[in-house]
Amino acid sequence: MNPASNAPIGIFDSGIGGLTVFAAVRARLPNESILYLGDTARVPYGTKSAETVVRYSRECAGFLIERGVKALVVACNTASAYALPDLAGSFDIPVLGVVSPGCEAALAVSQKRVVGVIGTAGTISSNAYGNALKALDPGIRVVSRACPLFVPLVEEGWTDNEVAHAAIGRYLRGLASEGIDTLILGCTHYPLLARAIGREMGDKVKLVDSAENTADALCRLLDESGLAAGTSLGEPSHIYVTDLPARFESIAQRFLGGEVPPVTRVDL
Amino acid sequence: MNPASNAPIGIFDSGIGGLTVFAAVRARLPNESILYLGDTARVPYGTKSAETVVRYSRECAGFLIERGVKALVVACNTASAYALPDLAGSFDIPVLGVVSPGCEAALAVSQKRVVGVIGTAGTISSNAYGNALKALDPGIRVVSRACPLFVPLVEEGWTDNEVAHAAIGRYLRGLASEGIDTLILGCTHYPLLARAIGREMGDKVKLVDSAENTADALCRLLDESGLAAGTSLGEPSHIYVTDLPARFESIAQRFLGGEVPPVTRVDL
Repeated sequence: MNPASNAPIGIFDSGIGGLTVFAAVRARLPNESILYLGDTARVPYGTKSAETVVRYSRECAGFLIERGVKALVVACNTASAYALPDLAGSFDIPVLGVVSPGCEAALAVSQKRVVGVIGTAGTISSNAYGNALKALDPGIRVVSRACPLFVPLVEEGWTDNEVAHAAIGRYLRGLASEGIDTLILGCTHYPLLARAIGREMGDKVKLVDSAENTADALCRLLDESGLAAGTSLGEPSHIYVTDLPARFESIAQRFLGGEVPPVTRVDL
Repeated sequence: MNPASNAPIGIFDSGIGGLTVFAAVRARLPNESILYLGDTARVPYGTKSAETVVRYSRECAGFLIERGVKALVVACNTASAYALPDLAGSFDIPVLGVVSPGCEAALAVSQKRVVGVIGTAGTISSNAYGNALKALDPGIRVVSRACPLFVPLVEEGWTDNEVAHAAIGRYLRGLASEGIDTLILGCTHYPLLARAIGREMGDKVKLVDSAENTADALCRLLDESGLAAGTSLGEPSHIYVTDLPARFESIAQRFLGGEVPPVTRVDL
């Protein structure tokens, strides 16, 4: 067994959305210790430039690596889209994003090989999903839409009211008629809108959420590299945030649907 | 004449909203040079804690003061609400926020002495407007509502469509029946929603925007302190942003409705 296997897993996100990944990893790997960092003082990343997102992502990764994590999960789609190659080249531990797992999940589901992708302005303009899908299947057709209002809607808790429906209608109307049979929810906030998005898209379009597939990919990565924790329980998990934790804790409850680990504010 | 009178005026905001104040100051004081700083890499402030907003505000103020500004305007309502006493106590130059000018304007307009205030979660939970209004007129009644989705709506350019109407309806429904005759738009983004907000509130409610009154208050402050520029044109104005300028410039056009000064990215 690799001596590093007792070390924690690091997960970072621009804010709270990555807790969907935290929850999926915790459910799959109950013996692993997880250090989660949410950059809540500088959230959102999705409206910011590639240069700024790369700089912030490096600072987040550096913070977790200083705390000895054995592997790093970039739970933010925008950070995965812009910063993954930079992070993977900068550190000695395995680095996993959410884009590749989401693409693999979509290709496993899509029959018609026409896939929709929704995400932040940053994620969509990077075309990270389009490039990754075409690298896996050059014949695939990809239809992308940026949906900048979805993150604030989720943070407001408006996931299934008339404002959410109006925004969903405006962003997604016409997407089904493009012939897609699969829609990638390319932002960790979006699973909370899944019910309302599903109603707009209809039964024939399957929604793909990368959190579950990212947790699966992490399991494989830890096994292959001999980094999986043993059967005994590791150190308790911990959440770090860059803004004060009060607001974070109330929203975290909604994402985790269960026990919220201790939350500490830190400066990056 | 004070030798500092040739120095520029500093204006800072969390992002682009403060350009409504920039435009009002430029229209009133065409000979003044203005240095504007938009902290676009960390926008928004309105959802963040007092502690984080004070820290960011100090950094913004410090940046402008290093560049020799003779007076500082805090154009962000959230920063004015949380950080004004701290900034005013930390620096030797006059510091002006947008809360007091907005309150004075509302009291000049309100007949019934029942005033509504809308703003970000931070501005409303600070109760800065409520406290300032009651300090000026202890008998006034204040009805406040936080409207967190209005900033993302304006940044998306959705100021008068069905999504904006649904959000405005949900936040403001019932506010008119509280008996208000005046509504303070307590966020520099909100004037862009004024038409749609006005329709929801009806003709009997007057909307008050602090940008114009802040520019008036700045004129008085410069005159009283002998800091007003002479009749000759000063140095050209300049805009600084903490994220890349591309997205900023396209939105700035919408706010300034005219010439956009040169824009430079800086790190704080």
